Amino acid sequence: MLFFLVLSFWVPAVLTSGQVWPLNSTPRKTVTLGNRGHVFQEEGVWNYTTMLLMEDEGVLILGAREAIFALDLNNITHKKAMDKWVVTSEMQRNCADKGKTPTECHNYIRILHKMSNDTMFVCGTNAFNPTCDIMSYKDGKLTLEGKQQDGKGKCPFDPFQRCASEFVDGKLYSATSLNFLGSEPVVMRSLNDTIRTEFLTSWLNEPNFIGMKHVAEGDDNPEGDDDKIYLFFNERAVEYDAYSKMEVSRVARVCKGDVGGQRTLQKKWTSFLKTHLDCPVLQTRLPLLIQDVFLFCPDTWTNCMFYGVFTPQGEMPEYSAVCAYSIQDIRHVFSKGQFKSLNSNTLFRKWVTYSGPVPDPRPGACINSKTREKGISNSLDLPDKTLQFIRDNQLMDQAVKPSEQPLLVKKGAVFTRIVVASTTALDGSSHQVMFIGTASGSVLKAVNYDGKMVIIEEVQLFKQSEPVKILRLSVTLGQLYAGSEEATVQMPLSTCDHYASCMDCVLARDPYCGWDLSAERCIAINNIHPDTHSEVVQSLRDGNATRCPAVESTMIIKTFYPGNEVRLLCQPGSNLARVQWSVNNHTIQNSNKYNIHHNNLLILNASDSDAGFYTCTSVESSNGKDYVIRNATYELRLGDFMEHPLVQPQIQDQQKSLLALKILVIIPTLILLALVVWNFYKGHFAVQRCLEKAEESPQSVCLSGATANCSRKINRNNNQQNS
Amino acid sequence: MLFFLVLSFWVPAVLTSGQVWPLNSTPRKTVTLGNRGHVFQEEGVWNYTTMLLMEDEGVLILGAREAIFALDLNNITHKKAMDKWVVTSEMQRNCADKGKTPTECHNYIRILHKMSNDTMFVCGTNAFNPTCDIMSYKDGKLTLEGKQQDGKGKCPFDPFQRCASEFVDGKLYSATSLNFLGSEPVVMRSLNDTIRTEFLTSWLNEPNFIGMKHVAEGDDNPEGDDDKIYLFFNERAVEYDAYSKMEVSRVARVCKGDVGGQRTLQKKWTSFLKTHLDCPVLQTRLPLLIQDVFLFCPDTWTNCMFYGVFTPQGEMPEYSAVCAYSIQDIRHVFSKGQFKSLNSNTLFRKWVTYSGPVPDPRPGACINSKTREKGISNSLDLPDKTLQFIRDNQLMDQAVKPSEQPLLVKKGAVFTRIVVASTTALDGSSHQVMFIGTASGSVLKAVNYDGKMVIIEEVQLFKQSEPVKILRLSVTLGQLYAGSEEATVQMPLSTCDHYASCMDCVLARDPYCGWDLSAERCIAINNIHPDTHSEVVQSLRDGNATRCPAVESTMIIKTFYPGNEVRLLCQPGSNLARVQWSVNNHTIQNSNKYNIHHNNLLILNASDSDAGFYTCTSVESSNGKDYVIRNATYELRLGDFMEHPLVQPQIQDQQKSLLALKILVIIPTLILLALVVWNFYKGHFAVQRCLEKAEESPQSVCLSGATANCSRKINRNNNQQNS
Repeated sequence: MLFFLVLSFWVPAVLTSGQVWPLNSTPRKTVTLGNRGHVFQEEGVWNYTTMLLMEDEGVLILGAREAIFALDLNNITHKKAMDKWVVTSEMQRNCADKGKTPTECHNYIRILHKMSNDTMFVCGTNAFNPTCDIMSYKDGKLTLEGKQQDGKGKCPFDPFQRCASEFVDGKLYSATSLNFLGSEPVVMRSLNDTIRTEFLTSWLNEPNFIGMKHVAEGDDNPEGDDDKIYLFFNERAVEYDAYSKMEVSRVARVCKGDVGGQRTLQKKWTSFLKTHLDCPVLQTRLPLLIQDVFLFCPDTWTNCMFYGVFTPQGEMPEYSAVCAYSIQDIRHVFSKGQFKSLNSNTLFRKWVTYSGPVPDPRPGACINSKTREKGISNSLDLPDKTLQFIRDNQLMDQAVKPSEQPLLVKKGAVFTRIVVASTTALDGSSHQVMFIGTASGSVLKAVNYDGKMVIIEEVQLFKQSEPVKILRLSVTLGQLYAGSEEATVQMPLSTCDHYASCMDCVLARDPYCGWDLSAERCIAINNIHPDTHSEVVQSLRDGNATRCPAVESTMIIKTFYPGNEVRLLCQPGSNLARVQWSVNNHTIQNSNKYNIHHNNLLILNASDSDAGFYTCTSVESSNGKDYVIRNATYELRLGDFMEHPLVQPQIQDQQKSLLALKILVIIPTLILLALVVWNFYKGHFAVQRCLEKAEESPQSVCLSGATANCSRKINRNNNQQNS
Repeated sequence: MLFFLVLSFWVPAVLTSGQVWPLNSTPRKTVTLGNRGHVFQEEGVWNYTTMLLMEDEGVLILGAREAIFALDLNNITHKKAMDKWVVTSEMQRNCADKGKTPTECHNYIRILHKMSNDTMFVCGTNAFNPTCDIMSYKDGKLTLEGKQQDGKGKCPFDPFQRCASEFVDGKLYSATSLNFLGSEPVVMRSLNDTIRTEFLTSWLNEPNFIGMKHVAEGDDNPEGDDDKIYLFFNERAVEYDAYSKMEVSRVARVCKGDVGGQRTLQKKWTSFLKTHLDCPVLQTRLPLLIQDVFLFCPDTWTNCMFYGVFTPQGEMPEYSAVCAYSIQDIRHVFSKGQFKSLNSNTLFRKWVTYSGPVPDPRPGACINSKTREKGISNSLDLPDKTLQFIRDNQLMDQAVKPSEQPLLVKKGAVFTRIVVASTTALDGSSHQVMFIGTASGSVLKAVNYDGKMVIIEEVQLFKQSEPVKILRLSVTLGQLYAGSEEATVQMPLSTCDHYASCMDCVLARDPYCGWDLSAERCIAINNIHPDTHSEVVQSLRDGNATRCPAVESTMIIKTFYPGNEVRLLCQPGSNLARVQWSVNNHTIQNSNKYNIHHNNLLILNASDSDAGFYTCTSVESSNGKDYVIRNATYELRLGDFMEHPLVQPQIQDQQKSLLALKILVIIPTLILLALVVWNFYKGHFAVQRCLEKAEESPQSVCLSGATANCSRKINRNNNQQNS
């Protein structure tokens, strides 16, 4: 019948169920930063969104709104130095006069690059008047040199418009907007040999710049190829004729040695090529848009990978994805792929695959050994034919596809930033660990094992749910730095000691951590002495925890009083575990009687029959095997009312009354007894009878005390009679 | 600071917040069918998805899998008649041999049309061998006449492929698939003058047929125009050149009098025109797809409106919309609009606006007075030029837009079906009430007041969350009939007596209901006697409930015992109300102490200080005015332990002990007293002293009883001495 229903109404079945997302992942743990990391926040300073790691100096240079900090890389709460770069009130007035808000009319530090060991190149929006300066960090002091220079084309006017830049060989490569309105995009090289893009929609069409990366492809290149600067951005698509505005992700690149053309493309890039960067997620009908990019190079540049985070365009982004691209695939498209060209007439314009002859040297190619052989030593020597072609056709026909399917697809998340760290596991294998920032202020730690994505944990970095705006990685220190509008956070790449049990440690599949069987704790793999390897359990691909010793949960005794509700807590410690409650070994389901909410059990209107043993077990599946953990065991006992603090005084009162009464019983009884004894002693009781008896038979024997008393009386009477 | 954050990270701000959906609506009430309606389910029968209302006969003809029922329209649980149409085991075997599943190899009734007063035209899929028959309903009996005829092109082969049909003037108009594979779509007229579409992708391109409606435009038409058959469907778009497969909603139409061309388009439609039916929802970047259509004609055909329900294509439909189109707008596009034509060369194909001369008579137009004047009395007379043009260009350039913005946009809902009923309010105004079926088995009742959508209620029709597959309306009986895979449900269009209070009745803004101030109940407007109008409150546009008398909620006394949890219930009766809990007039927030979940309050680890007065107030805003309703008032009293059934026996035991002790005190005390008295009486106590006193002064006066006793003793002693 189920099959029947699925068949007969495919729309919600396919589209609303989570099961069609094979790569849809849930973080195994959801935790807050707590004592795992450090938070830096300066009173009155916001927008901690620009960072520069200076590992030799041990400082993190942090650019914020009107302030630059030098923080201790080991503990960012230690502020080593600070400099302010404030806009004057006159500049603020000018800015406001142009229709900008007071919030926008500040100086937002947007560009920070290292120039030499102790000098940096820094730019700020400067109340919609972008300005750059040189800054030094010497003798624990951060100093802006005040050699201010025009920042147009280097840094955006608008503090909230995205930009990208790189600093290579003393030159700044930047992608931003050239004008106040933010409507004139440019990709340029400055500080020397200034060169830029043509202002044509075929070059850049309403772009949103995401990231720029320098790849030293010129190093030991057998073809004598040049270094490249790669640019990642989204722009309005021209190649599709869509129902409404459609955007597309792009990767573009220029050659480091490009100096522009002689007559054509004078002072303009002769090597600007771009293509569609595709991150195909299942039946997505619109291309996803890139939000951040990280360049991961394990050793030589030939093995470099670009990791990008993507979100759907338009409407509500209901999921996010990570795609990774190899530098070789990108190079292949640019150096061997076909071009797109515009076919237009009076009725329409359409970008189609260019099928005509491609000039030689190939348009957009860098100067290499072959072109040098032809006597072309730099771009000034390029023939006009090549230059004219590249001026009109920068777009490649073929898209760059990810090396594999998207590495990660997550429903209900908006990814904003990514960094990737590599680590060596216990068995010597190497793993790339992704740290992904989200719009809700958390960082996901994820690894792809044989095509299957594992999200080890989601750490909520900020108290408010504010987007992660920057992520930086220190591989040497094993630390992650994240910035948002409100704060900067430092977090270690791993905190193994937070895994409480062997099962927890092994099922986490965290490549940084393993369970030390002898020490009985979760330890960092890189701290293990080679001799103790056999004592440590780590199972990354399988998550096999069978070597873990069994653990018993302790019994918690909880008393209750009938008539109200009783709540029993259960924290399975893993979002992947299915929690099951049982009472006296009978499974509990949600009902009028029981309410299971956030894994906790609420017993409604508890009665004395609810006393018993309650257990919360969680079952975590790992690679097809179920691991059962008993999380909590409760003995629910009917409360002893007599011991209740509210009953106690009353009981005590009653007991006092009882005591008083008992005393009251004892005292008169004792008095009574005493009186009776006295009476007997005095012989008052027996007088008449004893006298009568004595009269009848004076020799009668009195054995008891009373009779002795009596006999004494008789004697006395006899004495009286005798006297 | 908030503004700052919003500005600085627009993506999630715009895309994840619900506030950018101004038409996003929540149903005021969410209820189950309960005793509001009737459910019909026949053991062993599924797929109640075809319905025909025969109001003259008072029966609902219901087509299901291998069965047809005649149910009482007033109460569908009364089955008046039934006939079976079962496939033979041989047919089933044949069907299975062709690779179909046992579920598919049944006879699913898909077509039911009225031919005359007591005869019907019925078709079933018949194990992938579509077959039609004539059926009669006479003398309370439902009989298939067994005159089976080929159903190809009338009814689909595949029971789960959608189709559309209409029965006009003894002819069947159908849109379905002609072949076993479901890959050859056709729109045809049969039973007489058979005529159909060309099998070309420009005519129908992988269509999914949704609905077909006959509009009698020929009635009293000043232009002598013909009746039209309108067809609604989704198909693969040709006019867009998208990133991936893209679908588009279409409205197409043919003329009733079309008999095909003479040489060109022989036995093919000469009047088949189609265009994009657009339902634009905010920044939607892909056209929405139609799921159902309802033809609403208040009086003459010129005022007819088509109501369509739409869902987004691809990925997860996170919302649904309703758009309404006037017949005049659709007519205008078809009769005056420009055509699209295909511009193709070796490199590409592109559909562009046709700018050349349009032949006369206009291609696709029905035969009307003007064409008749030209001597063209039917489509056979049309010139080849006109026919050749329409064979290649059925697609119009201009899309049909809804009369206003989408009438309703609802997040988190998948709409499947719609019917629209008109009703007259207390003030004489007319309102169109939409009943919208959803994929989760509920019906939404919604009205648009001055461009603002109000969802009066959502009624869950089926126990399982299964999609509503058919909705039918009986205006005369005021009943709604809905069918799903598992059951058929009947529900009245309104149940005013379910509104409990005046506030509830008026704030519901249900055009069918008003609050009778004198009778103090919510009554149906159409039952009101004109004289009592002034006594009834109804405020549809404003939802103004100020005329409602104030209502006090009764106090509920609840006792609790400290140490556990206490749950206090609150049912505001409206999803639009914001619930607020307070204790002793202090507002309660969610905290470690209080947990507000589904409007109910859970007091965690209650102590004696939690005793007090708890109130649950709900504030419902209506047209800018807040209406505060006190839903529940609790006096939470510390339970008297002494009266607790578990304490009572112990207390009673103690009391018994006390009583026993008291008795024990009283008895010896009494005995003691008696003994003392006796002793006194006997004069044992006073003997010595009295004797001594008597010796000192024998005349001493003994006034009290004790002294009297004493004096008697003295006398006795004296007597003894004297004797």
